Amino acid sequence: MKIHDFAIGPNPARVRIALAEKGLASDVTFVPVDLPGAEHKQPAFLEKNPTGTVPVLELDDGLFISECTAITEYLDNLDGNPVLTGRTPREKAVIHMMQKRAESELIDAVGIYFHHATPGLGDKMLAYKSPDWDGRQAWGERSRDRAVAGMRYFDKVLRDQPYVAGQAFSMADITVWGGLAFADFARIAIPEDCAALAAWRARVAERPSVRSPAG
Amino acid sequence: MKIHDFAIGPNPARVRIALAEKGLASDVTFVPVDLPGAEHKQPAFLEKNPTGTVPVLELDDGLFISECTAITEYLDNLDGNPVLTGRTPREKAVIHMMQKRAESELIDAVGIYFHHATPGLGDKMLAYKSPDWDGRQAWGERSRDRAVAGMRYFDKVLRDQPYVAGQAFSMADITVWGGLAFADFARIAIPEDCAALAAWRARVAERPSVRSPAG
Ligand SMILES: N[C@@H](CCC(=O)N[C@@H](CS)C(=O)NCC(=O)O)C(=O)O
Ligand SMILES: N[C@@H](CCC(=O)N[C@@H](CS)C(=O)NCC(=O)O)C(=O)O
Repeated sequence: MKIHDFAIGPNPARVRIALAEKGLASDVTFVPVDLPGAEHKQPAFLEKNPTGTVPVLELDDGLFISECTAITEYLDNLDGNPVLTGRTPREKAVIHMMQKRAESELIDAVGIYFHHATPGLGDKMLAYKSPDWDGRQAWGERSRDRAVAGMRYFDKVLRDQPYVAGQAFSMADITVWGGLAFADFARIAIPEDCAALAAWRARVAERPSVRSPAG
Repeated sequence: MKIHDFAIGPNPARVRIALAEKGLASDVTFVPVDLPGAEHKQPAFLEKNPTGTVPVLELDDGLFISECTAITEYLDNLDGNPVLTGRTPREKAVIHMMQKRAESELIDAVGIYFHHATPGLGDKMLAYKSPDWDGRQAWGERSRDRAVAGMRYFDKVLRDQPYVAGQAFSMADITVWGGLAFADFARIAIPEDCAALAAWRARVAERPSVRSPAG
């Protein structure tokens, strides 16, 4: 398997952790994509993922899978023991619900702020982010506020349970972890009173897959 | 089981079709939520779903599951034969990838247009959609253009395969179906040259679950 990758990207980081959790790190090769050079917005890459984002998993038979949720579903189910995405209907439901919240209310919200209200990854890439749209800056800032509200939401969740989707570590934890890493990078401060979120983050930082992700 | 519902909503429609596909229609009761009255933005509802949207599945033990993807994962896995969300790692991956595209590039994009660039469901609800934000109208219109680009993308996909995720009907078809229904309601025209999309739509319209969804 190959992963079309951007080594410092918070979304590719999600897949690197999933690979390590599943013991699949040595089964993949990473192919760097030049995001600052906007390689991911050129036809050759858009053939692989029309949405124009990394990571993209390429299977040996040539199938391309984009979206971390989809990639994680694939990797997690290979061994018939989907601990990251859920084994029972109930686990799957709660994990997918929290995964979606972790994306829309945190990591994707940080991404909108970073790419629209800051210089992001530089001029070449900004050209693909509607630089001529008046509402751009305001939209980015609204999105930052949404990400901070998302942090407060996950803090509240983590006051009552050890992991984002309940009693066990799951793909939703990986997504919140990536969201906080992206927030650090984009200089969005995590509210100081989010003690449960901070305690959870310290705990997750100790996981082998997070200390030594794939790649 | 209960579904907290808005009978004419395109997202609740997704769950109604999934219930019918799985033969579960008679196992649920629908509880109407007054969206035009903004009931879904009040504390009692936000306890059930902090994101403030319907549908929400309520299990008999009191667990609330929001997000159509999560609800469909639950319903589809109850009988151990997840035909809508995928049985193999590969099916799961492709379906989740296409599901995410159907949401971000179609149904959610239509929703942003409808709620931000048109009168939407009326004044009470608009008050929760940042009426004082200058970029609002432009953002809504950008989102409409994105939805139209999404239609063209799915048209292209459906030129080569009978269903959105390949050879079999899946949750991603339900989402594209809901997206097109929402586009009709929001008066976003489907490009006339999207012949494969139109043919697929006519075929899906004949499915028993679509002709007689739950509720
Ligand atoms: N929802 C996507 C998000 C992927 C994403 O946004 N990746 C970033 C890198 S961390 C990217 O490719 N950004 C390029 C861009 O936005 O133009 C996923 O789950 O894979
Ligand atoms: N991603 C959500 C979307 C749900 C959604 O947007 N539902 C609409 C009704 S069709 C809603 O509740 N809108 C209320 C609002 O946006 O305030 C899902 O999959 O359930």
